[in-house]
Amino acid sequence: MVKVGVLGATGYAGIEVVRLLLSHPGARLERAVSHSFAGQKISDVYPSLKGICDIELCGLDADDITKSCDVVFTALPHGASKTVIPDLYKRGLKVIDLSGDFRYNDPKVYEEWYGEPHSAPELLRESVYGLCELHRGEIKKSRLIGNPGCYTTCSILALAPLVDAGVAELRSLIIDAKSGVTGAGRSAALPNIYCEVNESLKAYKVAAHRHTSEIEQELSLIAGENIKLSFTPHLVPMQRGIFATCYADLTKPMTTAEAVELYKKYYEGEEFIRVYEAGTLPEIKHVSGSNYAGIGMVIDERLGRAVVVSCIDNLIKGAAGQAVQNMNLICGFDEGEGLRAAGMYL
Amino acid sequence: MVKVGVLGATGYAGIEVVRLLLSHPGARLERAVSHSFAGQKISDVYPSLKGICDIELCGLDADDITKSCDVVFTALPHGASKTVIPDLYKRGLKVIDLSGDFRYNDPKVYEEWYGEPHSAPELLRESVYGLCELHRGEIKKSRLIGNPGCYTTCSILALAPLVDAGVAELRSLIIDAKSGVTGAGRSAALPNIYCEVNESLKAYKVAAHRHTSEIEQELSLIAGENIKLSFTPHLVPMQRGIFATCYADLTKPMTTAEAVELYKKYYEGEEFIRVYEAGTLPEIKHVSGSNYAGIGMVIDERLGRAVVVSCIDNLIKGAAGQAVQNMNLICGFDEGEGLRAAGMYL
Amino acid sequence: MVKVGVLGATGYAGIEVVRLLLSHPGARLERAVSHSFAGQKISDVYPSLKGICDIELCGLDADDITKSCDVVFTALPHGASKTVIPDLYKRGLKVIDLSGDFRYNDPKVYEEWYGEPHSAPELLRESVYGLCELHRGEIKKSRLIGNPGCYTTCSILALAPLVDAGVAELRSLIIDAKSGVTGAGRSAALPNIYCEVNESLKAYKVAAHRHTSEIEQELSLIAGENIKLSFTPHLVPMQRGIFATCYADLTKPMTTAEAVELYKKYYEGEEFIRVYEAGTLPEIKHVSGSNYAGIGMVIDERLGRAVVVSCIDNLIKGAAGQAVQNMNLICGFDEGEGLRAAGMYL
Amino acid sequence: MVKVGVLGATGYAGIEVVRLLLSHPGARLERAVSHSFAGQKISDVYPSLKGICDIELCGLDADDITKSCDVVFTALPHGASKTVIPDLYKRGLKVIDLSGDFRYNDPKVYEEWYGEPHSAPELLRESVYGLCELHRGEIKKSRLIGNPGCYTTCSILALAPLVDAGVAELRSLIIDAKSGVTGAGRSAALPNIYCEVNESLKAYKVAAHRHTSEIEQELSLIAGENIKLSFTPHLVPMQRGIFATCYADLTKPMTTAEAVELYKKYYEGEEFIRVYEAGTLPEIKHVSGSNYAGIGMVIDERLGRAVVVSCIDNLIKGAAGQAVQNMNLICGFDEGEGLRAAGMYL
Repeated sequence: MVKVGVLGATGYAGIEVVRLLLSHPGARLERAVSHSFAGQKISDVYPSLKGICDIELCGLDADDITKSCDVVFTALPHGASKTVIPDLYKRGLKVIDLSGDFRYNDPKVYEEWYGEPHSAPELLRESVYGLCELHRGEIKKSRLIGNPGCYTTCSILALAPLVDAGVAELRSLIIDAKSGVTGAGRSAALPNIYCEVNESLKAYKVAAHRHTSEIEQELSLIAGENIKLSFTPHLVPMQRGIFATCYADLTKPMTTAEAVELYKKYYEGEEFIRVYEAGTLPEIKHVSGSNYAGIGMVIDERLGRAVVVSCIDNLIKGAAGQAVQNMNLICGFDEGEGLRAAGMYL
Repeated sequence: MVKVGVLGATGYAGIEVVRLLLSHPGARLERAVSHSFAGQKISDVYPSLKGICDIELCGLDADDITKSCDVVFTALPHGASKTVIPDLYKRGLKVIDLSGDFRYNDPKVYEEWYGEPHSAPELLRESVYGLCELHRGEIKKSRLIGNPGCYTTCSILALAPLVDAGVAELRSLIIDAKSGVTGAGRSAALPNIYCEVNESLKAYKVAAHRHTSEIEQELSLIAGENIKLSFTPHLVPMQRGIFATCYADLTKPMTTAEAVELYKKYYEGEEFIRVYEAGTLPEIKHVSGSNYAGIGMVIDERLGRAVVVSCIDNLIKGAAGQAVQNMNLICGFDEGEGLRAAGMYL
Repeated sequence: MVKVGVLGATGYAGIEVVRLLLSHPGARLERAVSHSFAGQKISDVYPSLKGICDIELCGLDADDITKSCDVVFTALPHGASKTVIPDLYKRGLKVIDLSGDFRYNDPKVYEEWYGEPHSAPELLRESVYGLCELHRGEIKKSRLIGNPGCYTTCSILALAPLVDAGVAELRSLIIDAKSGVTGAGRSAALPNIYCEVNESLKAYKVAAHRHTSEIEQELSLIAGENIKLSFTPHLVPMQRGIFATCYADLTKPMTTAEAVELYKKYYEGEEFIRVYEAGTLPEIKHVSGSNYAGIGMVIDERLGRAVVVSCIDNLIKGAAGQAVQNMNLICGFDEGEGLRAAGMYL
Repeated sequence: MVKVGVLGATGYAGIEVVRLLLSHPGARLERAVSHSFAGQKISDVYPSLKGICDIELCGLDADDITKSCDVVFTALPHGASKTVIPDLYKRGLKVIDLSGDFRYNDPKVYEEWYGEPHSAPELLRESVYGLCELHRGEIKKSRLIGNPGCYTTCSILALAPLVDAGVAELRSLIIDAKSGVTGAGRSAALPNIYCEVNESLKAYKVAAHRHTSEIEQELSLIAGENIKLSFTPHLVPMQRGIFATCYADLTKPMTTAEAVELYKKYYEGEEFIRVYEAGTLPEIKHVSGSNYAGIGMVIDERLGRAVVVSCIDNLIKGAAGQAVQNMNLICGFDEGEGLRAAGMYL
């Protein structure tokens, strides 16, 4: 039984890690750390857990965590991860970080997009980008995982096969992404309140969202050359889900059927990737509540352009589920253990 | 491994039975019957199941069902159940019916509220009302279960302890209930379309909803005398969930703490019933996506009146989950098997 | 042209007053006071007003207000009104207060429900409860109006005719009310954020909500005796709207048609009250975006109980619209001026 | 007083025309035609109109319409318009058609995208494309207006200034559009029901939506050369609103401030177009319930690409509001008459 600690257990990503661990047969939640709610039962903060998980939330005590846990998930506000993790990592723990702090190969990219120097650049060399479908081999050998962002998981999965096949005009890539509101986290800020979000829709951080740099890093690795692309996030009045509509000019003619074939081959054997047949497309509803990603496409032959749509549950495949998938890889479990629940649809 | 058939598998209750069965370790879905979609894969109708359950939907063939299945869930439109079930039951199958057809002890009550005679009154004598917390013993011995309605489960659980204790003025009972839209089923009717439901709220079938008669039947049994009560259903713009606000004049003074104690005692040992401490109340969010019921209360000492609020997920504890709970009872499984998932909260 | 000031112009009730004034032919917004946003244009805070109303928000300056305005609407957080209003009133301004501070005839009732002594009890004697349909005559003669609460407007309108006719058992009154989220105001509190409200429903302040006392005051006045009743507010995932489901045991038999007749007579000539024919009931959608109230009913002859449902737009008839209706009365306008827009339905 | 008839008055666009006419000082609704509800009062179908507009719905009678009306709005299902309009037009009525039937200059384009020959190609020569900001002069002289589609209004307004200035690489244009559910009309189809739409998001008719051809027609006219572009519609769980995110590679470097300046100049004097300052962007909430369009932009200097976002209320500026704006133009009213209401925000 792998013993697990969750730091930031009462945020929306943290509590989703907790929820998923409850149905994982090989892992046991030993510590749930919450700065704000230490001393309370986790089921007082999230009464959906009453009688199922009533563990008491505690403050962060590195000694205690080290003694009690084999793996820690860090689901902390941005910036907090990189001050806490070096110590935990040094103590020999396996660390899966859900923040942006350990997702970069190059500290300069971090600095450029996060506006501050990275305080633990030496750890960036040891950390592995935890997009399981792309880096499975390295992940298994690592014990510090930079768990990818929600937008990035959805976007990279959508474009990787095209880029890998060399059929996309790399300068033409555009990702128009739509997110549910859980993506904003459990924060009592005015723009998050019901009446400001409901019955509306907006774009934000246009041409400036940090996830752009993650997507560029990973697609550049695949392409073998430097990619710069457009990424536009939007906020949509629903709770869960990321939907990415991706555009790429093609370097050669192709039908939708051929593109689907290319994607099926690229993702062959991938349990959590569903490539849709020509004529069908994924919807948020198809993946919500699950660790699955849906990818579908239409080749616009009139224009020589591919339109690839991709969707995931931002809290699961885009955060907590992928983090558990990473735990499975680094702890030697079956990769899909605890993650095979069908989505809710309703 | 218990072999299961689901009739009406593509309705909202049916598909929820299917979804729950997928994570039940002792049951296997052998047949998914759908009149409208026979010949298609279930995952074409509900793509959330792609790669998880791709069983082909079939038409109803009683011989085939009898050979392939031990238990059938019938999640059919009203009226269809009582024409199909007598044959299946005679063939020796265990039948859990999610319609209103086998929930009554007295065919006259059925006739009064459903506006037609019951076509299989002899089976009403064999069927058991499947509210597990109230009729566990009889359920275990039966093989024809009338699975309770969503409103009724929520309402009866809320009022049973008060009625049982004899502290409620029986003529004063009022249940004001609020339902999510899945309760209306998967029907392309104008009042169900998004723009007619969203950002609105309405009462319907005031003083005339059929579930009234179920609630009266069960509470009368507990009281040992004939109860008539008000039941008012409302439609609320959310997907899942039933919330019942119940009012009862008290026959003797009582504090909220005493009432909570009374409920805790009544539901002692009940895995799926959560009685809330004084000062806290359940919300839909606490139970949505789970088989749990939350019950809380406030005694209004100023008025000598109890206000009991109760909530469940209408598709799970109010339909498919309770149906599986019944299957567990009649098949000898642990009662909570496959039903212990925490709710989604988000 | 009546010159108007709005205090608390950037709250949800305040901005709705502003929006309504924009289409009022006889009133002109001269001052929009906002503590938090002073110095900004109102259309920077609410860009829906861009190019329509770009007035600069200012801090509170009583001299300036007195010089510039004839009427002020005070849409301030609870408690703020009663510190600001005495001065404004003394200066001769007409004041329409949207808080609870000037709604009571008896300062002891205020003290009991608001938990503090009223700091200007002498003004309570001059203020009039601004439920236009009940107090039209007094309102016209007053220049200090306690504009009713949203829940109370909806509830009192629903029960007044029954109480007035003496056919309701006064000890049996129960109001089960459901509110949209704008009722919580523009406050960045955790319980107000989208993901805590959406797809959920809860009861709150059960047997303890302050609006109870307003409803009791007004219905007692009508009955000529002291009424105590149950009032249970619920939060529903929609923006606008209050829906009250009211229960009253009848002192004599009555049909639904007779009850409808009684209501029609009581509200004869009332432009903003719509009494529904037997067999039809109002829905939030019918009044949302308008100053109209919809009232419908079913007499449950089986039980001898009336179920009256009533709905309004909480921001309009429940706040800003009624405030403008009061302004019309005290300034000598046609009572419905600026308030006759049909609701949005969609 | 201009006498008006509305054909298809009970659809979502039709009823919105009716609602807007109610506050238009110079027009009076004389006939409301509804095939499905003839004989009922319009306020029985839309009770939000009770007491405000209780006109009886009638069947289509061309003689009667001709005698009673000066202008007719046709808000009919696709295909119906072109069978009804030729006759009405010949009788001398002014016709504003909300369908796609009279939006094209070239019947071949219609045939290509609508899959059938146009049955009244001679009328296409007389009809004017009713995007008021682009064709004001011609509209005033016409009496047959092809009122633009919702997606197209939003998209064309967003891209026209860039195309007109010759700074957009015409082969690079991509429009990623998001629509509220009223866009699907009042149709009881399964994909429209609440539980299929809510908490989800999907793309549809990718690379195949008919509005593509309208956008291409209009932008080509501005460019003076043939434009082909990508248009991807998405369905979002909200009622009203269209949001278009438009991408264009720039032919020369430009800052966001310069682009804003270019747009302000292009739309100078346009009452219903709001160009946003650099650093701010429109949201659905800013225009919902109004005839205004919001346009904002970010120049991604890193990529040499413009990202222009545009939003409108699909039922108003995208349908009924623009139709009334067209009526104002062809009937000699002030162009903004009856259309200046601020949006609802809440």
